[in-house]
Amino acid sequence: MHDFNWTAAEKKIARRIFDTALQRELDATVAKVKELAAKAANPDDIWALEEYISEHRRDIDQKYDYRYSQLIFVFGRLLREKRISDEELVGLASEKIQAIKRIGEF
Amino acid sequence: MHDFNWTAAEKKIARRIFDTALQRELDATVAKVKELAAKAANPDDIWALEEYISEHRRDIDQKYDYRYSQLIFVFGRLLREKRISDEELVGLASEKIQAIKRIGEF
Repeated sequence: MHDFNWTAAEKKIARRIFDTALQRELDATVAKVKELAAKAANPDDIWALEEYISEHRRDIDQKYDYRYSQLIFVFGRLLREKRISDEELVGLASEKIQAIKRIGEF
Repeated sequence: MHDFNWTAAEKKIARRIFDTALQRELDATVAKVKELAAKAANPDDIWALEEYISEHRRDIDQKYDYRYSQLIFVFGRLLREKRISDEELVGLASEKIQAIKRIGEF
């Protein structure tokens, strides 16, 4: 599965899918942190906020791995998490789309 | 200096000074975090917020050490940081107040 070749056109699409999903997730994290901070009333809420940021930062760093050997897995996971939609995959070769969807079903 | 004896009355005063300063610093941290989060506009602001919370939590944990062998140093530092005032020390033996003020001048 990691032996897929990516054409120049597919690389462009992959980069767009990847960047869009990453930006969405970063925006959602910023929004959620602002919401949690606005509700925070005591030190424990603030320590919990630190943990929330730390976990999400680590999670995002690990998840968004733009190596062509990993992209099918990355997109599969993003599909499962509903961070990307089937429509965004249009333009990739059908065997890649199938592989991404199979991983997305796990 | 750590050989000071603390009378029951002084222990009560010390506990009040300590708890009041700690509460003030925690309240200030909560307020500052809420302010920073409200201003945050992008992921870098959020990662900086995580670092801010982490540093302040560690700093507070280290600073507020309620061992009688440490209290003079703790109060000296709090005085230097203007987190407590001379007036709050009233009721402690004068040699303790002198020692706290000396440390506060460093």
